[in-house]
Amino acid sequence: MAQQARAQRTRKALIESAAEMFDRHGFALASLSTISAHAGVSKGAMHFHFANKESLAEAVGAAAAQRLARITDRRRGHLPGGALQLLIDATHDLARGLGEDAVLRVGLGAGHAPGHYGACGGDPRGLWTAWVGEVLRRAAGEGAMTRSAPADAVTATLVATTLGLGTLTSPPDPAAPAPRTDATVTTLWNLLLPRLATTGAAGELVPSGTPGRGGPPGASE
Amino acid sequence: MAQQARAQRTRKALIESAAEMFDRHGFALASLSTISAHAGVSKGAMHFHFANKESLAEAVGAAAAQRLARITDRRRGHLPGGALQLLIDATHDLARGLGEDAVLRVGLGAGHAPGHYGACGGDPRGLWTAWVGEVLRRAAGEGAMTRSAPADAVTATLVATTLGLGTLTSPPDPAAPAPRTDATVTTLWNLLLPRLATTGAAGELVPSGTPGRGGPPGASE
Repeated sequence: MAQQARAQRTRKALIESAAEMFDRHGFALASLSTISAHAGVSKGAMHFHFANKESLAEAVGAAAAQRLARITDRRRGHLPGGALQLLIDATHDLARGLGEDAVLRVGLGAGHAPGHYGACGGDPRGLWTAWVGEVLRRAAGEGAMTRSAPADAVTATLVATTLGLGTLTSPPDPAAPAPRTDATVTTLWNLLLPRLATTGAAGELVPSGTPGRGGPPGASE
Repeated sequence: MAQQARAQRTRKALIESAAEMFDRHGFALASLSTISAHAGVSKGAMHFHFANKESLAEAVGAAAAQRLARITDRRRGHLPGGALQLLIDATHDLARGLGEDAVLRVGLGAGHAPGHYGACGGDPRGLWTAWVGEVLRRAAGEGAMTRSAPADAVTATLVATTLGLGTLTSPPDPAAPAPRTDATVTTLWNLLLPRLATTGAAGELVPSGTPGRGGPPGASE
């Protein structure tokens, strides 16, 4: 293996390990030695990549922003349901991602565990909010939205709900199975769509998400 | 002032201070000396009430459970909109409480800040989930609910959204003003009710909440 590929793999393992430790023990209690040991990396190799915990937190946030971008970019092409279906699919992907992926949870400040939201780089929560707002405006441009709700408030409602799903999906006991969120997200859309979408648009929308959504966000990294 | 009243006041000040420090710095970084200093209480007096940080976290959780109970008990009498209006009013009160009150935020594990959800007593999040489920069942018993959504999934959706509002209302920068959540909660109900409530019930419901809701949850303690 080329040296560069090995360095990248080490860096990725450290980011994963840091996110898991921040998620489980909190930023303050997570120690650099636990993070390097959990990643299977020597302390010397870790210090080559990250000078301190702050730079690890920064990298976790940047990685979360990348994974989020992969979720939001997954369906660039045209969907029968247009922008609203894109949003439905992305909320399913994000809810599943938050349940499975400590990087996303910590980066979005969406877990209940003592993370360190403030120190994370890349502002993934701001990106998610901006993307939801933009997709809703696109849906309105497609004539798919009713006029019954102001776009800003709908955006805030959807962001609150998706972040809240993160607090539900990360159980206090790490050994407990993560609750299934697919049904919750589907119910949310079943409830919202009749009011949010025009009758014409609603007929084409699939509240449970369209098939062919990608695997877990961290898988292809 | 009687000695007992003074002791109670000291205890309450310590709980408030601990919640604020857990919310701002996280359980691990919050120090007992900062908590006692912020409460204006000597270290000796603090140790009379609380042996360690864990017992403070336990007390914060118990206080959050009490404040939550005050929110859910506020309207025991009959409302024109029945159980669903009770739920609408309580979500408004809770969203406002989460924005203003570190005890509620930390106790419910609903802030983004590094709290210490696991160590909090009284299980306020479990109480909220149980209460939302019970009120939805009462609303169904009143004939106010459509059959379009399973009660469990609706409960999970509402709990996720209300906890998510907590992550939105506690800004990373403590100096920044908390965003107004009233419009977000009203929008949520405007979107949900046409699908959730029967036509007969919907006519009596006020998505923005009924007047005469109490003050902030901590005020009368």
